[in-house]
Amino acid sequence: MKSLKLLIAFLFIVQSSIAQNADSVFIRKLYDEALVNGHSYQNLEYLCKQIGPRLSGSGNAQKAVEWTKKLMDGYGFDHVFLQEVMVPHWVRGDKEVAYIVGGKKRIAVPIAALGGSVSTPVNGITAQIIEVRSFEELKALGASVIKGKIVFFNRAFDQKSIETFPSYSGAVNQRGQGAIEAAKLGAVGVIVRSMTHALDDHPHTGAMRYADDITKIPAAAISTKAANMLSDLLKFANSNIQFYFKQNCKTLPDVLSYNVIGEIRGSEKPEEIISVGGHLDSWDLAEGAHDDGTGVMQSVEVLRLLKTINYKPKHTIRAVLFMNEENGLRGGLKYAELAKQNKEIHIAALESDEGGFTPRGFTVDDSPKALSYIQANWKSLLEPYKVDDIVSGGSGADIGPLKENNPGIVLMEYRPDSQRYFDIHHSALDIFENVNRRELELGGASMAAFIYLIDQHRMK
Amino acid sequence: MKSLKLLIAFLFIVQSSIAQNADSVFIRKLYDEALVNGHSYQNLEYLCKQIGPRLSGSGNAQKAVEWTKKLMDGYGFDHVFLQEVMVPHWVRGDKEVAYIVGGKKRIAVPIAALGGSVSTPVNGITAQIIEVRSFEELKALGASVIKGKIVFFNRAFDQKSIETFPSYSGAVNQRGQGAIEAAKLGAVGVIVRSMTHALDDHPHTGAMRYADDITKIPAAAISTKAANMLSDLLKFANSNIQFYFKQNCKTLPDVLSYNVIGEIRGSEKPEEIISVGGHLDSWDLAEGAHDDGTGVMQSVEVLRLLKTINYKPKHTIRAVLFMNEENGLRGGLKYAELAKQNKEIHIAALESDEGGFTPRGFTVDDSPKALSYIQANWKSLLEPYKVDDIVSGGSGADIGPLKENNPGIVLMEYRPDSQRYFDIHHSALDIFENVNRRELELGGASMAAFIYLIDQHRMK
Repeated sequence: MKSLKLLIAFLFIVQSSIAQNADSVFIRKLYDEALVNGHSYQNLEYLCKQIGPRLSGSGNAQKAVEWTKKLMDGYGFDHVFLQEVMVPHWVRGDKEVAYIVGGKKRIAVPIAALGGSVSTPVNGITAQIIEVRSFEELKALGASVIKGKIVFFNRAFDQKSIETFPSYSGAVNQRGQGAIEAAKLGAVGVIVRSMTHALDDHPHTGAMRYADDITKIPAAAISTKAANMLSDLLKFANSNIQFYFKQNCKTLPDVLSYNVIGEIRGSEKPEEIISVGGHLDSWDLAEGAHDDGTGVMQSVEVLRLLKTINYKPKHTIRAVLFMNEENGLRGGLKYAELAKQNKEIHIAALESDEGGFTPRGFTVDDSPKALSYIQANWKSLLEPYKVDDIVSGGSGADIGPLKENNPGIVLMEYRPDSQRYFDIHHSALDIFENVNRRELELGGASMAAFIYLIDQHRMK
Repeated sequence: MKSLKLLIAFLFIVQSSIAQNADSVFIRKLYDEALVNGHSYQNLEYLCKQIGPRLSGSGNAQKAVEWTKKLMDGYGFDHVFLQEVMVPHWVRGDKEVAYIVGGKKRIAVPIAALGGSVSTPVNGITAQIIEVRSFEELKALGASVIKGKIVFFNRAFDQKSIETFPSYSGAVNQRGQGAIEAAKLGAVGVIVRSMTHALDDHPHTGAMRYADDITKIPAAAISTKAANMLSDLLKFANSNIQFYFKQNCKTLPDVLSYNVIGEIRGSEKPEEIISVGGHLDSWDLAEGAHDDGTGVMQSVEVLRLLKTINYKPKHTIRAVLFMNEENGLRGGLKYAELAKQNKEIHIAALESDEGGFTPRGFTVDDSPKALSYIQANWKSLLEPYKVDDIVSGGSGADIGPLKENNPGIVLMEYRPDSQRYFDIHHSALDIFENVNRRELELGGASMAAFIYLIDQHRMK
């Protein structure tokens, strides 16, 4: 009896090790294909250089829909289709103009309207400008100080965080909520320090919100160098400093757009879906290379890699290119709504929306059991590729809405190195030239390896 | 008795955990200082933009010696001094010219003379060009085919390796030894595919050797795009293709130069030295930013960080800025020679010469005991900074010569992410703009943390 137990244990170990070995061999094939014949980089070049900025509602966003559909059709995936979704259509209009004004002197400074902002009056706004670093500080000053002024939100990124996303989280409420909080106290405009670790001349745009019952005041981002200069000038000559800015951005009626979806059907459980995605829309100041052209092209590449090496997945594997992550999340919401309506079963979803940099790992959202399983069983398979830093953490914005109607779904985000991301994020620097081929292709292979492991073993 | 043993064990655990906690607090201070007030990036900007390329023997190399000495003097390190060393003085001369020649047609291609190469005759060389991918293939062709021809070494980097240095190692003998092997068979010149993963128009220079009894023939690197084009043309019209190149580089008499050294004296064992270094010289095609301005400025920063937070090291800690790593290693050899002569005791040496990218870990050279100790005791302290990938591997070229006369020395290399390194290495792309501030400063802090741990605990 004892020897039988030992034999069973032995056979179990042998079987596990054969499985691990098969996984290891398969994963190596994915990386070989990606590094030698990868398509992400050339596809990204097309998306960035032949199409370019892809703000929701724009002609370029529509071109990106059509081209990525054609691309996936060309790869011969089992089913490639569009999902209709109405998206916001905000346009920047003419290039913004801004000056720091001190008596008869004025200094031009680089600004960019925040996405969703209203325009200034046609000749711009001039007003005294008040610097604050938090909503608490703003509230303490009160309406008596703020009324009729422009509020300058100047809380910088915390440089000490080793990873960069916490620094963004610690500052971004100024951009998102600043106009509401300032308008509550009677401000006439908002200037926000750009969301970046870098000290340079590039304004970084991004989404901002209004509230229904609060006056909508214009809001713009200012470059970090100009923000420091403005802050210095305010220290020395506070009451004499005024700020002028002019922007004629506006929100047009919603536009019909699309999520673009490609899938390889499952051979055993086609009704169960594993998705991998990024967002197809981008801000308008550059090419949306790292945000999120890389995630989109990596997601398509995951399917291409699996198909190219003749993998027959057990579950259906979908690449989902979401529309309108940046200023509305309409694509992510619509995808989840239709999934519910069509009674789709989503067992896992992976997003890549942190740039196309060197792979480091994955985050697993709110599923300790899946996380433990992954760490115990897959870490060693990913370690040779240095993408084995697998921790608990948030997943992507687009896949978040799937949680509500898919109990047991495991949401994950691909985590590349984060150091360079906010230097370029939402600014004119987010261009193809700032993407490295090997870093990008390694990312796609890492995502494919992870999707393969989920398909093979789920998170038991 | 049993309870006494338990008490002792308990106290030991408490003591260890207090020590770990003190280390953890100290290391956090290093990173905070580096990320908020780091000097590496601004120092590197000066080195790259105010001084520039620093090939051994050049006026710029001398300027770099003088400026880095002044810089370390300014930081108030305990002792800053120069070590005399005679270095080679090779000069590139006029920009090289090269054509692929097919009948009356010619196509200009980008080349760069390899460091140490002789010139071509004053009007250049024209000859049939023979492509090979290995010395074996070359030898198989033999003198009957090779005599009077130009040999084109076109073995590309292996793209499949996840880390990039093995790809370099797998191709670089073509550059280093190619002219010797080709000349043995009567070749008149050598063209070598650039040592890079990238496909672009930049030739990558680098050191090459001659042998005393073999004819010295001129050698140059060709860009990878041009190499591919040349290879394609040779496939279709082999015997009709000739190659022309002209370069007027030469080797002048040796020049007096210097290693630049700064140190903080040890408070307990000043006679025992821990060194941290990089090389001050660079190739001439760009600014030597990642190779190895970053390593040099990080090494200086290690001392500045420790001094700034008032650390009193037990051992003497030295920043060593080596001269002439690229084409002679004279600085490293001289440093070891003088260490022997002065009966210095070197217990550990760390080099940073793999670029200023995001930290990943350290390699420990040929010391399994030290490696085990580090992995067991320090990995957890480095893990929050994601620089805990500590493995066996080679150390830097400059510190290698210390091994012979310092039994027990532990040699180590700082290992940043390697993906982008060879895209820019030894080419016109190795400029300050391709260095990221946070990646660089994180590296300096990581090196300082490692040096601190060695100083506190050695590798027991």
